[in-house]
Amino acid sequence: MNYNSHIVSSKTKTKFKIIDGSVTAPQGFLAAGVFCDIKRLGTGKGSNKGQKRDLALIVSEVPATVAGMFTTCQVCAAPVKVCVERVRGGTAQAIVANSGNANACTGARGLKDARDMTAMAAELLRMPANQVLVASTGRIGVHLPMSNVRKGISAAVGWLDNSRPSSAQAAEAIMTSDTRAKEVAVEFSLGGKRVRIGGTCKGAGMIQPGMSATGARPPASPSKGLHATMLGFITTDAAIDAKSLQSALADAVANSFNRITVDGDMSTNDTVIVLANGLAGNSQLKKGSAGLAAFQSALNHVCLALAQMMVRDGEGASRFVTVKVHGAASFADADAAARAVANSSLVKTSWCGGDPNWGRVLAALGYSPARVVEEKIDVAYRSPNNRKLLFALKKGRPTAVPFKTLCQIVAEKEFELHINLNLGKHATVIYASDLTEEYVDFNKGDVSDPASMGG
Amino acid sequence: MNYNSHIVSSKTKTKFKIIDGSVTAPQGFLAAGVFCDIKRLGTGKGSNKGQKRDLALIVSEVPATVAGMFTTCQVCAAPVKVCVERVRGGTAQAIVANSGNANACTGARGLKDARDMTAMAAELLRMPANQVLVASTGRIGVHLPMSNVRKGISAAVGWLDNSRPSSAQAAEAIMTSDTRAKEVAVEFSLGGKRVRIGGTCKGAGMIQPGMSATGARPPASPSKGLHATMLGFITTDAAIDAKSLQSALADAVANSFNRITVDGDMSTNDTVIVLANGLAGNSQLKKGSAGLAAFQSALNHVCLALAQMMVRDGEGASRFVTVKVHGAASFADADAAARAVANSSLVKTSWCGGDPNWGRVLAALGYSPARVVEEKIDVAYRSPNNRKLLFALKKGRPTAVPFKTLCQIVAEKEFELHINLNLGKHATVIYASDLTEEYVDFNKGDVSDPASMGG
Repeated sequence: MNYNSHIVSSKTKTKFKIIDGSVTAPQGFLAAGVFCDIKRLGTGKGSNKGQKRDLALIVSEVPATVAGMFTTCQVCAAPVKVCVERVRGGTAQAIVANSGNANACTGARGLKDARDMTAMAAELLRMPANQVLVASTGRIGVHLPMSNVRKGISAAVGWLDNSRPSSAQAAEAIMTSDTRAKEVAVEFSLGGKRVRIGGTCKGAGMIQPGMSATGARPPASPSKGLHATMLGFITTDAAIDAKSLQSALADAVANSFNRITVDGDMSTNDTVIVLANGLAGNSQLKKGSAGLAAFQSALNHVCLALAQMMVRDGEGASRFVTVKVHGAASFADADAAARAVANSSLVKTSWCGGDPNWGRVLAALGYSPARVVEEKIDVAYRSPNNRKLLFALKKGRPTAVPFKTLCQIVAEKEFELHINLNLGKHATVIYASDLTEEYVDFNKGDVSDPASMGG
Repeated sequence: MNYNSHIVSSKTKTKFKIIDGSVTAPQGFLAAGVFCDIKRLGTGKGSNKGQKRDLALIVSEVPATVAGMFTTCQVCAAPVKVCVERVRGGTAQAIVANSGNANACTGARGLKDARDMTAMAAELLRMPANQVLVASTGRIGVHLPMSNVRKGISAAVGWLDNSRPSSAQAAEAIMTSDTRAKEVAVEFSLGGKRVRIGGTCKGAGMIQPGMSATGARPPASPSKGLHATMLGFITTDAAIDAKSLQSALADAVANSFNRITVDGDMSTNDTVIVLANGLAGNSQLKKGSAGLAAFQSALNHVCLALAQMMVRDGEGASRFVTVKVHGAASFADADAAARAVANSSLVKTSWCGGDPNWGRVLAALGYSPARVVEEKIDVAYRSPNNRKLLFALKKGRPTAVPFKTLCQIVAEKEFELHINLNLGKHATVIYASDLTEEYVDFNKGDVSDPASMGG
């Protein structure tokens, strides 16, 4: 399976409504987020007040079917290895996640720590350890402070009994360089039953996910690598079999998380997990079910909304650019062309400057692995406030549209860049941020703080 | 031919000496650099004083054999198209080049302008137009101001008759965002005859050249695109047949210009041309000649010195990093691994911060198309002042070398990053700059000046 082959048209009439909340919006899900000092900031007794939470717990009250998509980075973190193995079983009931430490490049001890995290949670939650999944994000190459983790899990489990709202705390607990928590929830109807899907995610840098179900690369890995740590946790009370859930998630991820880039860097830890506990009481969705399309449409919305939140909150980002490529000879070409443009340092810096520099766009298309013919390329810009496409280039030649008019579009915080290669019928889209001085400043880090090592 | 397959060992004893000068160091070459207002800055009469020169001319007094390497970017500039065609003939006698305008994406008129440039020079120089080559760098998508070009060529040809030193003026005339001119020359002996090779180049941004003899892509184009405008002009008074000259240049470029990256962006205009006029009087070098190795070695030095000057003068660059990959399963893997690291925004920003962030290095290796196994990877840093390799990682695990010791190396302006994949016998090297706020500031441009469009 190619993680980009599932580009489905979203022409399906959406029949869901957007509601408040996230992972606890569906029936039977509880969440918690606590501070347990994963970074070992060494806070004194009682001095934890005001610290960002760093350990999250999401729990279904009943066993759930599970599906997951994981980084295809060959250097992959211990929690990813544990999840890939457990998701295969088709059921899970809880997710424990931490920020501040990626538990990546941590060898056998890291793998034991990841498993121990699930065992600690499982013991307190009174479920088998293999029903608990685990995810980490933060510094690479450092062992988790397991005594702090244990305290955190214990505090989080204690919180779960509580009826206070808690999904926002879980959303905060997984944030790293994110400036804001990312949450979404939708509601729709399946055979008269109210079904909800909720989700939360984190990710702002090291963002160009390319996830597959097993973490293995697809046979024909498209062109320029697909490259964040992003973590995404989705819950639903829909009843659906594991195989259909995996297929639905793969489709949704192909159209969302796998179509974004902040900096072109894929992480060691990218993880998306969905738990479906069936408490909505719909008749179980499976291959051929009439309700699957509605479920897919709602899941697509949740994943795309979360994915776009990451790009908008990209490290230092000042622009959200939708790069649409049409008319490619193949999907792989469309994908390669869009990624070459969306990841070009020169194109991204021009966006930062509000500069509709189509010369750099053409150069990026020209060096991409995609087949392009200069004399056939159309390039247009579109403002979200004015649905008219303004062509900078038609058939490779500048149009009469004044440069200043194009500048007005690129001066906006969000705009669309349309590229038609006019060589075929294949199309795709990549959502990208610009490259700013703030990105560099943030990521050049503070060497006195090795905890700045991403993951 | 794969433009990266020619990685030859430079173990050959170098028998050349480095001398002053550049393209006019070999016998029988003249050069000039003038200001003719290619950017149409609109200077008034007599107000050209202090303007950077923007038109260069390099001329051999006698017909020369020629070889060239050109961008493999599918969107390629008019002068590149003209050169590819003419170099095939095996002889040339002059090069006319301008900065300030790339003559790229300029359609049929652009192609006519490029040919007209050569015709103007040819007429004044009294040689056939097809013996004149042409190169441009600067803004993409704008037509050349041909009346200014004509004045410039006329002034440059006038200068040639003069005995004043002029290679430095030609070097200045091709500069765009370069902060300094780039020149080198070497001298060696062939059968008792003194032979010289001189060169000049420009390039600071849009730099990751991937050039081939025809501008066509090699059948197996390695991984992440090979992606500057760089222009390189080399002259020699060696006698050598065209085929051997092309082969020697391909080897030299594979080991120099095609092994550098500033920003991972390949240009529409990358061009390297060498003219060999035979005035040294050596017996002509051809396949099997004993002197070829010495010639190759000297040419390699000229190309590598020029290529490294570009990286050191990279836009906003504060570091010069030699990324060496060893132990890859194939050359393509070594190349892909090195480029993934050298082009990762996160790795490059960490260098800018003096941060030996091996976590980001591992992530980049992991998402590269190269096969890597985390548990086998060694990562080491080396200061140019201390030949000892300091290992950050052995077999994927951190060593006891203190983080602060690694920081001291990465704090230097130049250092080496050694990566051993321990999966095979293939090795390569990429010379890279870091990614700084100054790079972003420079390239976000000034939209009030569309001349900032690179090329």
